[in-house]
Amino acid sequence: MPNHQPNLPENNGIDADALWHDLLEAAEFGATAKGGVCRLTLTPEDRQVRDWFARTCISLGATLSTDGMGNQFARLEGREPGLAPIAIGSHLDSPPSGGKFAGVVGAVAGIAILRALRESGVRTRHPIEIVNWTNEEGARFSPAMLGSGVFSGVFTSAFALSRVDASGTFFEEALATIEAAGSAACGSHELTAYLELDIEQGPVLEAERCAIGIVTGVQGMRWYEVTVSGRETHAGTTPMTMRADALQAAARLMASVQEIALNRAPHAVGTVGRVSLKPNNPNTVPGEVCFSVDLRDPNDAVVLAMENSFRDRAAALAREYGVNIGIREVWDLPATQFDQRVIDAIAHATRSLHLTARELISGAGHDAVYLARVVPSAMVFVPCAGGLSHNEAESATKEDIAAGAAVLMQSLLAIDVRLDPLTA
Amino acid sequence: MPNHQPNLPENNGIDADALWHDLLEAAEFGATAKGGVCRLTLTPEDRQVRDWFARTCISLGATLSTDGMGNQFARLEGREPGLAPIAIGSHLDSPPSGGKFAGVVGAVAGIAILRALRESGVRTRHPIEIVNWTNEEGARFSPAMLGSGVFSGVFTSAFALSRVDASGTFFEEALATIEAAGSAACGSHELTAYLELDIEQGPVLEAERCAIGIVTGVQGMRWYEVTVSGRETHAGTTPMTMRADALQAAARLMASVQEIALNRAPHAVGTVGRVSLKPNNPNTVPGEVCFSVDLRDPNDAVVLAMENSFRDRAAALAREYGVNIGIREVWDLPATQFDQRVIDAIAHATRSLHLTARELISGAGHDAVYLARVVPSAMVFVPCAGGLSHNEAESATKEDIAAGAAVLMQSLLAIDVRLDPLTA
Repeated sequence: MPNHQPNLPENNGIDADALWHDLLEAAEFGATAKGGVCRLTLTPEDRQVRDWFARTCISLGATLSTDGMGNQFARLEGREPGLAPIAIGSHLDSPPSGGKFAGVVGAVAGIAILRALRESGVRTRHPIEIVNWTNEEGARFSPAMLGSGVFSGVFTSAFALSRVDASGTFFEEALATIEAAGSAACGSHELTAYLELDIEQGPVLEAERCAIGIVTGVQGMRWYEVTVSGRETHAGTTPMTMRADALQAAARLMASVQEIALNRAPHAVGTVGRVSLKPNNPNTVPGEVCFSVDLRDPNDAVVLAMENSFRDRAAALAREYGVNIGIREVWDLPATQFDQRVIDAIAHATRSLHLTARELISGAGHDAVYLARVVPSAMVFVPCAGGLSHNEAESATKEDIAAGAAVLMQSLLAIDVRLDPLTA
Repeated sequence: MPNHQPNLPENNGIDADALWHDLLEAAEFGATAKGGVCRLTLTPEDRQVRDWFARTCISLGATLSTDGMGNQFARLEGREPGLAPIAIGSHLDSPPSGGKFAGVVGAVAGIAILRALRESGVRTRHPIEIVNWTNEEGARFSPAMLGSGVFSGVFTSAFALSRVDASGTFFEEALATIEAAGSAACGSHELTAYLELDIEQGPVLEAERCAIGIVTGVQGMRWYEVTVSGRETHAGTTPMTMRADALQAAARLMASVQEIALNRAPHAVGTVGRVSLKPNNPNTVPGEVCFSVDLRDPNDAVVLAMENSFRDRAAALAREYGVNIGIREVWDLPATQFDQRVIDAIAHATRSLHLTARELISGAGHDAVYLARVVPSAMVFVPCAGGLSHNEAESATKEDIAAGAAVLMQSLLAIDVRLDPLTA
């Protein structure tokens, strides 16, 4: 395999300036005062960015189709009729105070590849599809990754369409309101391979001055809602030895989440992100504390072991403090191992392009997690400033994103020219 | 001093059934489904209970006046013109999920004394005033004990009127909305002595099967607002070793509050009652955690030592976790020692009435704390079930409250007949 494809100039023909221009253009839809975006799925802002995506891809020679979940496919036909497309996917929705980069970098990298193919005249064997998946973030409709989940057979369409947002609007109504649903059945076509580019959303690549993360898989994760029930009493008049203080038990249990993760270094992570108290009054010993627990590790057995440690600690604290502790599992996403052939293609691409790279396991969920269940898949990460994501101050450089797009292009071309199709 | 006053029947003429009826009537204003009350100060529910208090006292022959802070005074004239009144005070506001007893028992005991005096025909030398102080709880407007604080010269009226609740309403507006302010200047009249009855709001009397607590003073207390500032990052993608997790530092600091109090057993107490997180999202490492700390001990030097231990622990955690920790003192109430002559009158009353009694130091603040700075004051406690207070399940018996009212009556009469006025 040559380092560069015939007819492709330096950087695989990726036009970094045009890519950056696309990224800033997309950031205008739902732009916030602090430089981020608020573009919840299936809102008027999402409609604007969807129209922009369609318009831009069509202007580069692609044809656009949309399925019943609102997933958009911008397709460039290949030389060999009958081959299933190679897809490059991402999402254009954001959390309420999101940045300009997460998700969007994957879409603009796909557009940059359409542009490079068009300008170089290179024509692939397989059709190429650039995909915008609906509701990746899960910020408006839970669960996350709903469009790719239905495409991959993880959820039924009926399940997805009946999801409800905080204001009581059904997913189906929201789709209809912005006319986002197409006529194609979701998941009705095969893919040869699936590639996804995103910012790392973590600090490792930047800290190690690495240009590219070769993502070999996604951590397993489980979410829990923990409720500690003690006895509401007066903060001034109840001796320390006569309390059933839900917060004091909860504080020790929350602290254990860090210890449990550190005991499984270096990959395991554990987070308490949300806490609420009743009655939440400075003058009252808390009667009830609820908090979220998020446990992740690339190995599902480790996640389970962490859960068991947490449950043991909770039982001990319940006895010690005279409180009840309920632990409810609210999400279980097993670990994903990406396809070795796709990983190899990405790794080879980074070497041909002389880019510093390292393997990474994604800590965050992505549409590729569900795609990987039905299509050979892998991901490419580029660095982001300070590892910051899900934050309006999210930032990444033009050069890094363009390098990521070049790796995506090179990987795609390598997969395209293999004599044996990845899927039999 | 005789055990019973002339013309007064058993139990000093306190009608336990009428007292209980008054208590249940008051509990209807702001009644909650769980049997408690939600009667934040200066709300429509507070207006209802104020009207009820005025109506009931007037029906028993008292005249009602209200000062500029909304403090209500129900006055029964005495035999000797020119003597300053003996006051029996309490409050009728409650925390958001309060019980039927705290505060209210003091008011209904005062009403029971008005009734006993009227029915027995006993006329005291001094005028008697039953007082309802505004905003004792501090649940709506901070700080607590605002009405008695202005009366006692601890706060200026201007300070009190400019307090703001969580919805942005000024204390002055809230007073006007329910037409609670009267024309009398707050604090413009002298008192001979001040007595206050309340439930213990703690478990000691019940545990020791004691009918009466002779309250000799109130613990010193300090309140703090603690802010832990770390770095908001993605919960899945940020390795444990690269976090500045505000919640993990905060959990350890919150846990230290318990240790610090237990190290100063048996009197010291420490409570974290309110906690808030930013952004409070299961998928984000918390960037900021704010929480309240309440430290109390009968000895002010111990409270200071506890504060110093807490500050040391915070400094160590800030270094360990790479977070900033700010500690702001928001309230400092030095320990109160009540007037020995009033304490003696109460102790003597319990003996004459053959009631089991013990001395206690109050763990909670009360209006008597501020009154004690300007008037000879002391308090009487009666038992409450399980020491539960600031809780909808708060409970006390008719017999115990009536016994407390009888002690109050006996103490009042003893003070009334002293040849030397308590205040010169």
